[in-house]
Amino acid sequence: MRNKMKSFITNTVSDFFFEYETPRQVLVRNRRVGVVCRLIQLGVLAYIIGWVFIYEKGYQSSDTAVGSVLTKMKGVGYTNVTGEERIWDVADFVFPVQGDSSFVVMTNYIMTKGQKIDKCSEVRHMTGKCLVNTTKMCEVLAWCPVEDDGNIPDPALLMSAENFTLFIKNTINFPAYGVTRCNLVEGIDNQYIKSCLYDPKTSPLCPIFRLGDLVQLSGFNFAAIAKEGGAIGIIIDWTCNLDHDQSDCKPIYSFHGLYGNPDETDTARASVGYNFRYAKHYMEDKQEKRTLLKVFGIRFDIIVRSVATKFDIIPTLTAIGSGVGIFGVATVVCDLILLYLLPKREFYNNMKFKVTETIDKVSLHQTVA
Amino acid sequence: MRNKMKSFITNTVSDFFFEYETPRQVLVRNRRVGVVCRLIQLGVLAYIIGWVFIYEKGYQSSDTAVGSVLTKMKGVGYTNVTGEERIWDVADFVFPVQGDSSFVVMTNYIMTKGQKIDKCSEVRHMTGKCLVNTTKMCEVLAWCPVEDDGNIPDPALLMSAENFTLFIKNTINFPAYGVTRCNLVEGIDNQYIKSCLYDPKTSPLCPIFRLGDLVQLSGFNFAAIAKEGGAIGIIIDWTCNLDHDQSDCKPIYSFHGLYGNPDETDTARASVGYNFRYAKHYMEDKQEKRTLLKVFGIRFDIIVRSVATKFDIIPTLTAIGSGVGIFGVATVVCDLILLYLLPKREFYNNMKFKVTETIDKVSLHQTVA
Amino acid sequence: MRNKMKSFITNTVSDFFFEYETPRQVLVRNRRVGVVCRLIQLGVLAYIIGWVFIYEKGYQSSDTAVGSVLTKMKGVGYTNVTGEERIWDVADFVFPVQGDSSFVVMTNYIMTKGQKIDKCSEVRHMTGKCLVNTTKMCEVLAWCPVEDDGNIPDPALLMSAENFTLFIKNTINFPAYGVTRCNLVEGIDNQYIKSCLYDPKTSPLCPIFRLGDLVQLSGFNFAAIAKEGGAIGIIIDWTCNLDHDQSDCKPIYSFHGLYGNPDETDTARASVGYNFRYAKHYMEDKQEKRTLLKVFGIRFDIIVRSVATKFDIIPTLTAIGSGVGIFGVATVVCDLILLYLLPKREFYNNMKFKVTETIDKVSLHQTVA
Repeated sequence: MRNKMKSFITNTVSDFFFEYETPRQVLVRNRRVGVVCRLIQLGVLAYIIGWVFIYEKGYQSSDTAVGSVLTKMKGVGYTNVTGEERIWDVADFVFPVQGDSSFVVMTNYIMTKGQKIDKCSEVRHMTGKCLVNTTKMCEVLAWCPVEDDGNIPDPALLMSAENFTLFIKNTINFPAYGVTRCNLVEGIDNQYIKSCLYDPKTSPLCPIFRLGDLVQLSGFNFAAIAKEGGAIGIIIDWTCNLDHDQSDCKPIYSFHGLYGNPDETDTARASVGYNFRYAKHYMEDKQEKRTLLKVFGIRFDIIVRSVATKFDIIPTLTAIGSGVGIFGVATVVCDLILLYLLPKREFYNNMKFKVTETIDKVSLHQTVA
Repeated sequence: MRNKMKSFITNTVSDFFFEYETPRQVLVRNRRVGVVCRLIQLGVLAYIIGWVFIYEKGYQSSDTAVGSVLTKMKGVGYTNVTGEERIWDVADFVFPVQGDSSFVVMTNYIMTKGQKIDKCSEVRHMTGKCLVNTTKMCEVLAWCPVEDDGNIPDPALLMSAENFTLFIKNTINFPAYGVTRCNLVEGIDNQYIKSCLYDPKTSPLCPIFRLGDLVQLSGFNFAAIAKEGGAIGIIIDWTCNLDHDQSDCKPIYSFHGLYGNPDETDTARASVGYNFRYAKHYMEDKQEKRTLLKVFGIRFDIIVRSVATKFDIIPTLTAIGSGVGIFGVATVVCDLILLYLLPKREFYNNMKFKVTETIDKVSLHQTVA
Repeated sequence: MRNKMKSFITNTVSDFFFEYETPRQVLVRNRRVGVVCRLIQLGVLAYIIGWVFIYEKGYQSSDTAVGSVLTKMKGVGYTNVTGEERIWDVADFVFPVQGDSSFVVMTNYIMTKGQKIDKCSEVRHMTGKCLVNTTKMCEVLAWCPVEDDGNIPDPALLMSAENFTLFIKNTINFPAYGVTRCNLVEGIDNQYIKSCLYDPKTSPLCPIFRLGDLVQLSGFNFAAIAKEGGAIGIIIDWTCNLDHDQSDCKPIYSFHGLYGNPDETDTARASVGYNFRYAKHYMEDKQEKRTLLKVFGIRFDIIVRSVATKFDIIPTLTAIGSGVGIFGVATVVCDLILLYLLPKREFYNNMKFKVTETIDKVSLHQTVA
């Protein structure tokens, strides 16, 4: 009994391993349907191989990076406002000072010196508590004298900012692939950095940028943006195919205005103006005073875009697997033509289908047989 | 000979193009199995069309954006601490001043004036080098007088911050689709911005927010958060279907407490308190002094969430292809029922399968035939 | 007539529902081909179940988080430069003060006191307008005295920064799954935070970090990085399987140098140096003066990486569907062997294919029959 059981299992397993099923097929020799079907199949094949695999690289998975950006400005500005000469260095014209990925370079300002908290008549804006005094003027408790920002200096006081330079260090890491890249790629050594200046054609990998170039490449006019301020995005684009050598993974820099289109009219451009107020406090005669700066400047946002792609078995097999499915659609379409549209459809129906009669009829049939 | 070869190839190619294979099938006329199979097939079809295509928009690819945020606060605060009136404007109560996407609005403070480096007895915390002096008190080298932050002013000194307004400019770019959008969408012009105020129901697109509203919409109580500080996230949600018109791609603003739940008990809320120390340095009588501010404030983090979707041929065909595969599962299930569970399984087995005998038997068979 | 139509439709519908098609198959009993085919099929099955489903969790969709980071430094530094004792607290050594996710801790500095705008001979760098004076030295309009940064203090003046502590609060939100997590996870309460210190082995969830530990875990030497400055990334890695309990979703902290490899030679390390200039302005004798600090420090960038995965019906069925497709490839491969390579290929061809003659021949055939 036990032997029988054992031999039964052995037979079943060996049967399973030594045989396989393959569908029986009708080879339809019909020129019209044949051509239609082959063309659809070739189309599907071309789509899967040409489009999904070669063009869209469907055999790759993708990942975005995490990273960090460090910046350093260089340059010295000189202003001469009504005979008062002044020197502006990085500690004065960059906000914030510590080299963030988003920072402002001052290009113009309205300085209000020696403000102290007092009651004074307002200039244009009410900036404090309004007290009606004897002269029937509205007096306010405010930082006096109140800032008069009616006239923006034109041309901008720090036009020399055009020649300031910006150095960018950017490191990114693709955690999924364990790859770390820095914008100081192979060949960009300390020697090269000391003398290079970014140029989209001749030095596209130099990480040192002249402010005037940045503004021009964004499509703005430096004199206009320096006067009222503006915001420029510096995009560092890392599109890396990690199936190639890592050293081919290089950044591409691009530049554009962040808020508003440089080509728009003056009214629209007005909304591009970028400014903020900044105060330097000090003590004079035991009283707190401050120098208020309305700072107009160019705000730079360094935006890192990244996508790395690499061969991965899962998208590859998913693409193949679903490709096989689409391949099957070709047969379905041709079957529809064959079985419903052709004059000989009856004949092909008989070729393709074998019908089991309903149970009752079958029983009858078997009995008869 | 050459002609023969040529004609052989021509025939093979024309054969290939003018014929196609279609599987031969058994049309099983069995009510129970038929219903089961058709229901499974309909279910798969409903899933693919209804769920994958219509509900989940499986015919679209998606992309997230890169972007930048610019902020500007407006408002003037007034404090009167023991008779000393003071005016606080944006240069005084916003940190940092330049309008970042993450910033703090001061709502309360403990000011320690005239600190200089000296030896003094500590108040509560040891903030320097401890030197035991003759009076057996522990003296420290510190910025003296040492700050006493035991009592936080209550109510907050700058309760007027409730009426300050925040203006947000946010530009995003979907690199995969080449689409750039700004939160000043169509219809939000300079004229509208001058007078509008964000309201989730009546003005959901106005980019100007009252601080009191922001705090309330986050579920906090302004008086409580103003006293001890807190952190609020302003989420700008861009969920865009780029198959529709770009002008339908609009931001949705939402607000929530960032660290801790506003509904929690006092103990937990204590950890929500947000403060930092800030010093203004000055010279007095040739000695460096500073005014130390322990700033309590509301920290706003502007968080941009974005996802754009658009028709793409690859996910479409992948969905169809894998759908065809799942469709085939229906047949497999019904075959299992047909071939293993039905009483007539022997009969259906014979209908479906044609068995090739093993090589030896086949040879025998052929010989006999 | 109407009845006939009705009954025709009813019949068609009932026919459709009570029948189904299943492919007719040849059960090929051939040991070699059978084994090849079954092995391929088992391989595909193992790949789909083992690799796609179990290992790669192909039944899950994934999402990245949006979040925010808040930091707070604690510590007091003491310097004694040529007899001048000085205390540095958080208001002095952290830039910016308000607790951002990217900040700098000062560890060394070159202080130039009492600078005013004047004409003076340059030390090394030209920092202003050059005027050749009578002594044939080049004089410049600059902040005088000009900073002499030729010698960096060694050891670093604020070596005590090694014992400063950093507290990090990080909240993330996975919008697709509506899950919010904070790095103060379950069990990390206020009580624990008061006494804990991060240690990769014993306290991997404590959010308080000693600066010396951070530097060491990044592979740097504190004395070296403190002298010239450097940049360190603190990576908070949230890899969450949301099919498990949310409380299993915990952060993993890791640390590495951001710009350059700590193992590299001195020359390379030079490029790691991180510094910026910072000025404190004051008034003395009605003249604006400033104290310029060249700040060397450790810049910390807190980088949040996140990916959450959760069961989703769409990737599940896509994986199954494309798996079925790949399964079909096994049959195709075995058919190729069967129909083109085996000696009995003619026989198997006849078993598998039933050929419809071309239209003309068929007509003839039928006539004959």
